[in-house]
Amino acid sequence: MTEDSFRRMWSELLPVGRSAASGGYRRFAWNSADAECRAWFEEQARSRGLTYELDRNGNQWAWLGDPQGPGAVVTGSHLDSVPDGGAYDGPLGVVSSFAALDELRSRGAEFDKPLAIVNFGDEEGARFGVACIGSRLTAGVLGREQAYELRDADGVRLPDAMETAGYDPAAIGADDDRLARIGAFVELHVEQGRYLTEEHPVGVASAIWPHGRWRFDFHGEANHAGTTRVEDRRDPMLTYAETVLAARTKAQLAGALATFGKVAVEPNGTNAIASLIRGWLDSRAADEATLEYVVEEIRQAAYERGERDGVRVELTRESYTPVVDFDVPLRDRLAKRLGGVPVLPTGAGHDAGILASVIPTAMLFVRNPSGISHSPAEYAEETDCLTGVTALADVLEDLACE
Amino acid sequence: MTEDSFRRMWSELLPVGRSAASGGYRRFAWNSADAECRAWFEEQARSRGLTYELDRNGNQWAWLGDPQGPGAVVTGSHLDSVPDGGAYDGPLGVVSSFAALDELRSRGAEFDKPLAIVNFGDEEGARFGVACIGSRLTAGVLGREQAYELRDADGVRLPDAMETAGYDPAAIGADDDRLARIGAFVELHVEQGRYLTEEHPVGVASAIWPHGRWRFDFHGEANHAGTTRVEDRRDPMLTYAETVLAARTKAQLAGALATFGKVAVEPNGTNAIASLIRGWLDSRAADEATLEYVVEEIRQAAYERGERDGVRVELTRESYTPVVDFDVPLRDRLAKRLGGVPVLPTGAGHDAGILASVIPTAMLFVRNPSGISHSPAEYAEETDCLTGVTALADVLEDLACE
Repeated sequence: MTEDSFRRMWSELLPVGRSAASGGYRRFAWNSADAECRAWFEEQARSRGLTYELDRNGNQWAWLGDPQGPGAVVTGSHLDSVPDGGAYDGPLGVVSSFAALDELRSRGAEFDKPLAIVNFGDEEGARFGVACIGSRLTAGVLGREQAYELRDADGVRLPDAMETAGYDPAAIGADDDRLARIGAFVELHVEQGRYLTEEHPVGVASAIWPHGRWRFDFHGEANHAGTTRVEDRRDPMLTYAETVLAARTKAQLAGALATFGKVAVEPNGTNAIASLIRGWLDSRAADEATLEYVVEEIRQAAYERGERDGVRVELTRESYTPVVDFDVPLRDRLAKRLGGVPVLPTGAGHDAGILASVIPTAMLFVRNPSGISHSPAEYAEETDCLTGVTALADVLEDLACE
Repeated sequence: MTEDSFRRMWSELLPVGRSAASGGYRRFAWNSADAECRAWFEEQARSRGLTYELDRNGNQWAWLGDPQGPGAVVTGSHLDSVPDGGAYDGPLGVVSSFAALDELRSRGAEFDKPLAIVNFGDEEGARFGVACIGSRLTAGVLGREQAYELRDADGVRLPDAMETAGYDPAAIGADDDRLARIGAFVELHVEQGRYLTEEHPVGVASAIWPHGRWRFDFHGEANHAGTTRVEDRRDPMLTYAETVLAARTKAQLAGALATFGKVAVEPNGTNAIASLIRGWLDSRAADEATLEYVVEEIRQAAYERGERDGVRVELTRESYTPVVDFDVPLRDRLAKRLGGVPVLPTGAGHDAGILASVIPTAMLFVRNPSGISHSPAEYAEETDCLTGVTALADVLEDLACE
């Protein structure tokens, strides 16, 4: 029964917003694929007799029991994607939430507390450059004024995008009343690394690594690639290249991660030595001291090479998220209920990471055999997904049917 | 007199197509700045009583004497620019040509041969990606059918761009009749390196280094930058970085040049390991064997690092220009007339390099104190420019007033 329900929902969502060219998903905040996902969510709520609700920040809620709480048990995730992302990141949590409810109903569970399933808007931040906009607004971590100033690549402001999609942006902002009704939030998510095993395909999150984004600006001098003597060059591509290699080495030595995945070059001409290169560093570590140390090591390598190349290096921290430790009693309760599952940290941000600062929050991870994430090749075994549904049903029963 | 003429022309051209933001020039084939430059050229011809002519490929000619030749002595250069290029690359040759004619007239020179000044269209290739389109078409090096297929970044075809600018593209193609009328072509150009000195601000070209453009495709695997274990990564940014550094090292050891100035990254997201990086290598050397050796060394370094990174490397030669040796008798005649000036090779392509394969061709270079080229900061001293005008007048007199 639960299997059928899971499979049906999965097959309904699978084609929505999928690019035929890449095989990846392009479900971005307030675009047409996002609207299809939202319509699907509302239909899931209504077909189960749940109370459907759209909150002031565009997050969708499906309630079993009184939406006024108190002490509500909430589960869910998000339905949007990164550019050409995979099918599992986000949707697995939402689909598993509905399937877990189906499972609990088939068990004849009697709920002592209200239960809700949530779809948080714009978790990936693919359109406006800020991740977890729906949960950040709700938690008051992203201010209303800041949100109003966000623009997408075409210059469209966030409130205008909401309005175009038929949503009222007038009331966006912190939603303390809603948070006060919630006793616990549990998000199930496909793992984005490869720590879980066939033997233990479900784990509980301990923490989210502190992480941040740093922009390196390498200022060189535009010149002719075919005539400028080596000794007259100030080529920032060399400094950038050295910094990329240093990032890998320094991070690996410290057991951290440091990645350059985005770069912008001016003038970006084949026969022109670049005048300016911007490279974005994504770095994460188990603790903030290690993260700080790694970034400082990379900065030093960049500056030293810059001296040799005649290139001026500027470093700007564009974003920073401190370590998130999930609620320890809740985490222990989940781990106990599931009986000896792995408890593991993650390097990725999530809505659960935002909410952890304001309500008791926990996460479940489901095994990702290849570890591939944010890619069309992202994949999870159906049998692991179903184990995840059962685990989620177990912890929701434990929390809501005391 | 000649000085005044030079200064007047220089100040007329200086504001045309100059970006207020960058201070660099944006004179691209058939755009409005290009049209202004062309109107200026026609006016220079007419105000001097020269016969103005537009050839089938959109190159402009100003004739003193019979445009039918034979044995015409031709000088000139181009008026278009690279994106945000400098004021001297091209225009110095055209302005110096008119100034040299003024100088010869003030000397009372009597011409035995027809003399022409030419403005070749689209030398830089900034719009359609192919350099020296005007001279390539004329020399039959670029075919009419190929030219018709060229498109700019907005998808506009070359013939449509010509037509929009008011030129008839119907007759573009090889122009053997025209070439048959020419006895010698001399192009004056600002130097793009720093070999000429204050003592010797004018030099004669010996050759153009063989040069080419190679595209490296680095195929990795998209993945989450914050969660993918180091051992699970196939990050092409690392392979690219190693290749960039190898290019500098290998070229320097061989006395050649190798530059990565252009790169394209997919998906180019801050929190995504790249799936594909394309990097374009520009490489040049004094001879073809050295060039081949350097590119092979860089290829090997890329492949070896690719093995370590799990990244597949593909190499495609996108363009290649063999060595151009300028006409030796003509070169020696110029050097003799100018009396012991430096004779030097260059790494840059020029219309003169195209024409050298079909008519006796020579080049004069004027000192560039900073060596900066293809940049708003490109600069030459006025006193050196005037020395260049005198030198050009001297060689034209020698060639046309026998």
